[in-house]
Amino acid sequence: MGAVAGPEIERLVQLLARLPGLGPRSARRAALHLIKKREALMMPLSGALQVALDKVQVCKTCGNIDTQNPCTICTDPKRDPAIIVVVADVADLWALERANATQGRYHVLGATLSPLDGVGPQDLSIDALVARAHAAEVHEIILALNATVDGQTTAHYITDLLQDANVKVTRLAHGVPVGGELDYLDEGTLSAAMRQRTLF
Amino acid sequence: MGAVAGPEIERLVQLLARLPGLGPRSARRAALHLIKKREALMMPLSGALQVALDKVQVCKTCGNIDTQNPCTICTDPKRDPAIIVVVADVADLWALERANATQGRYHVLGATLSPLDGVGPQDLSIDALVARAHAAEVHEIILALNATVDGQTTAHYITDLLQDANVKVTRLAHGVPVGGELDYLDEGTLSAAMRQRTLF
Ligand SMILES: [Zn+2]
Ligand SMILES: [Zn+2]
Repeated sequence: MGAVAGPEIERLVQLLARLPGLGPRSARRAALHLIKKREALMMPLSGALQVALDKVQVCKTCGNIDTQNPCTICTDPKRDPAIIVVVADVADLWALERANATQGRYHVLGATLSPLDGVGPQDLSIDALVARAHAAEVHEIILALNATVDGQTTAHYITDLLQDANVKVTRLAHGVPVGGELDYLDEGTLSAAMRQRTLF
Repeated sequence: MGAVAGPEIERLVQLLARLPGLGPRSARRAALHLIKKREALMMPLSGALQVALDKVQVCKTCGNIDTQNPCTICTDPKRDPAIIVVVADVADLWALERANATQGRYHVLGATLSPLDGVGPQDLSIDALVARAHAAEVHEIILALNATVDGQTTAHYITDLLQDANVKVTRLAHGVPVGGELDYLDEGTLSAAMRQRTLF
């Protein structure tokens, strides 16, 4: 196909195929769709990517992704600075925000501990979390991690490190299905799990 | 989420969600993946889209998409100008090229006739096909259209219009897919495969 449509289109297809959810075949369809919808879709998408490249940054406080640093949540005076909700990934933060599940602020670890995949504590922003937990204004750390082996391993690891901090460590209630991932849950379940959080 | 991540990221998510194969949830994952892979993926994709915007055009002869016009196939002296393979969509052209199925050239209709969806002859590049079919060098028109009601309606419509042209009009054989099991095939396909059987 490269020889047919030219290396430029082939390159576009290959890059699209690296997006999660798109395989080689759907990437070809996506490229074709973009080319057909040149004004209505390809130009706006090109522009949106350029804007994102120019403006999107990682919040130095919490690890959230935003166009301002510190992020909108960290600087929102209506968000409770006493509560830090620990998530593995920005996708989980988004899911909790969609569920309107907390008025606290966040801390994005970047991953969960996974010895089998070679992901250790040094790969997560755990030191920064421990430092934040020692601030006088922080009273509760909510561990909003996947109810998987890796997620719970991470929760235990962090809880141990927070022994010296003057904070209550809680976790989401077991409304989260065992083995389930936050990002797949409906908003009601996420809200209920947040309300019923228990002492860790 | 818009309020959380900012309108720029929300816009990116919304545009990605309009790609075939990506829903709202996978579009969020794709946006996040792009932001995380800023140098390795978002920048190259932004560049590839810009190149495509600058260079990709629709071939005025056949309707193929390429970075040159007329396209690589139309200008390739090794492609037989006596044969025009009629397809509904560029995706079908790509599929036939991947299969190395023909040495002919192409004509992309842009769609198939679909009265129920309000797609009529004026929405397809049929006039241009009829004009091409009248060229002295053209001897065969191969209708490579879907074996669906719409595809076959389109094939009949075109065949009628080509009565006056000095060309042979053919269509793809029906038959057993390579690797296909007889037991799973519909009766129409089996009957056609039997009627059109070939010497072994
Ligand atoms: Zn932040
Ligand atoms: Zn062409």
